[in-house]
Amino acid sequence: MTELKLERCKIAVDAMGGDYAPKHEILGAVAAMKEDNNFDLILVGDKEKILKIASEENIDLNEKVIYHSTQVIEMVDKPIDAIKAKPDSSLVVGAKLVREKKAHAFVSAGNTGAMMAVSTLIMGRIKGVSRPTIGASFPTTSGDQKCIVFDAGASVDSKPQHLFEYAVLGTIFSKEMYGVQNPTIGLLNVGEEESKGNELTFAAQKLLKYSKLNFHGNVEGRDILEGTVDIVVCDGFVGNIILKFGESVLNLLKTRVRNYADKGLINKIKALIVKSVLKASLSDMDYQTHGGVPLLGVNGISIIGHGSSSPLAIKNMILRAKEMYDKNLIKKFEEALKTYAITK
Amino acid sequence: MTELKLERCKIAVDAMGGDYAPKHEILGAVAAMKEDNNFDLILVGDKEKILKIASEENIDLNEKVIYHSTQVIEMVDKPIDAIKAKPDSSLVVGAKLVREKKAHAFVSAGNTGAMMAVSTLIMGRIKGVSRPTIGASFPTTSGDQKCIVFDAGASVDSKPQHLFEYAVLGTIFSKEMYGVQNPTIGLLNVGEEESKGNELTFAAQKLLKYSKLNFHGNVEGRDILEGTVDIVVCDGFVGNIILKFGESVLNLLKTRVRNYADKGLINKIKALIVKSVLKASLSDMDYQTHGGVPLLGVNGISIIGHGSSSPLAIKNMILRAKEMYDKNLIKKFEEALKTYAITK
Repeated sequence: MTELKLERCKIAVDAMGGDYAPKHEILGAVAAMKEDNNFDLILVGDKEKILKIASEENIDLNEKVIYHSTQVIEMVDKPIDAIKAKPDSSLVVGAKLVREKKAHAFVSAGNTGAMMAVSTLIMGRIKGVSRPTIGASFPTTSGDQKCIVFDAGASVDSKPQHLFEYAVLGTIFSKEMYGVQNPTIGLLNVGEEESKGNELTFAAQKLLKYSKLNFHGNVEGRDILEGTVDIVVCDGFVGNIILKFGESVLNLLKTRVRNYADKGLINKIKALIVKSVLKASLSDMDYQTHGGVPLLGVNGISIIGHGSSSPLAIKNMILRAKEMYDKNLIKKFEEALKTYAITK
Repeated sequence: MTELKLERCKIAVDAMGGDYAPKHEILGAVAAMKEDNNFDLILVGDKEKILKIASEENIDLNEKVIYHSTQVIEMVDKPIDAIKAKPDSSLVVGAKLVREKKAHAFVSAGNTGAMMAVSTLIMGRIKGVSRPTIGASFPTTSGDQKCIVFDAGASVDSKPQHLFEYAVLGTIFSKEMYGVQNPTIGLLNVGEEESKGNELTFAAQKLLKYSKLNFHGNVEGRDILEGTVDIVVCDGFVGNIILKFGESVLNLLKTRVRNYADKGLINKIKALIVKSVLKASLSDMDYQTHGGVPLLGVNGISIIGHGSSSPLAIKNMILRAKEMYDKNLIKKFEEALKTYAITK
């Protein structure tokens, strides 16, 4: 991968993936290029449709950036079946571009399961990775510090070794992308004491404790937002549920404030103030600011977005992929997996 | 238990349990009696200490309500060891009062693990219950509707049968305590589709689907606050983490609003408005309103409170125990476990 670093970065974008594809994808990609013109864009999808939308949006799109593909994997499609049935889908074609080294990164707001599957199966895994993982970043009470939870849903029924690998990948990611010098790692558990836990955490605790990683120990559900550690590792079942639960908190807040506003004019005015304050105070809880979640452990940069991604979210996903490329993350993952490998 | 129903309700309160014991316990108990004088109070703990605090607080406490015990299980004590080492602790003595039918309910803000252990080991389990469970109730976007999550941390590494039993106990609890006619049950999962899940959910799904319970199907992390169902069942590992994560959300909000307020006078005024609106809109997220969580499945009423319980929280825990007694919940659990039992 070191040679690739010398090349100009090429980012493939699934133009057909999201709920508002290809419009949001085109707008997001164009916005990303305006902000950083130091990469080549490859829009994967139906050429005719892409050009039509670009023209409707008065965007002067260079035809050459389009990599034509004829099929689309829909949101409702079953990932594995769809990959087989639709070999010329934008998702399959985009992942192949990375495998064939025609692109360094692939970004999609399409079917999440299918994106994980094409990334893992087509791009392949980095040596030393048993299972790729998704990291979800949470705001904390400690100012700008983030807490990233691995795995946020790439796989369930994890083994202790998987959690250990998530910790290695997470360490590099936190260091390179968030500038944390020596990221601390917490093992998500039902109590801080070593005597607390389930079968998985007891075994994972040992692996982490005797590794060269900066292991803090067990952490609880509250420690994520409190920023007790930089990285929290857990099984993807738990991580996925926390991520979705967390996303729904803002909805609950909005609904409650809306109901409050409905009770009279003074309430309405107060509610407007609340809305503006919360917007200012919780801006980092807006998924659009980071756009999507990276799938770490696959042999290439893979970023997965919300189906409902806005152009802003798409733009930020692309810029994030660019940053991961600039920082040579894949190479650094490879090295870390060797450095921290458990010698039996 | 039907005969017991005819008796006057007796509620034992662990006077030595919480961080502010026995003061908050005494104040809470006296407040509960002011609100409902239709039960007998039994304050379990050090007689001298209790009388001293009562006198300091100018409370005319009838000595007869005190059930003297000499030992105290501390917050840091290991549950099982402590139970053996301290047979005359308020926790052990209180649970024994229930086993010996001298009390119908036991309420404690003490060591949570020890309270679960004494309730399970000393009171015993209701026939048909493999593992007792804790239910944590969450606010939802659907007005007054609550969503109760079982298990919120009583045990980990649950088997499918345990989740099924949680659903049975939860159904009765939701019906009787929250007045929900035919409570819907969701199985917490990483996706709604039947094809999604881990080993536990695949097996539990089958048990729930073919039972006579009102099973809605799989639900995701976001469905808890959205109120998609009345009851969510999951392993205690996941439930505990969601509960603690959820509790920390309000802290994050408070910190963020406080930081906002620090940035000038106008911000300060706006932040005061935000604080008052959130307080009004999210009052049901304050744990003090319901006080504690009931441990369901044990042969007696057992309510576990926060270590830091305020007198208000203690009062509400006692009144909740009283309500569970008035509604004859233990008897109804027994019957439901027979009605819904899976015939192999």
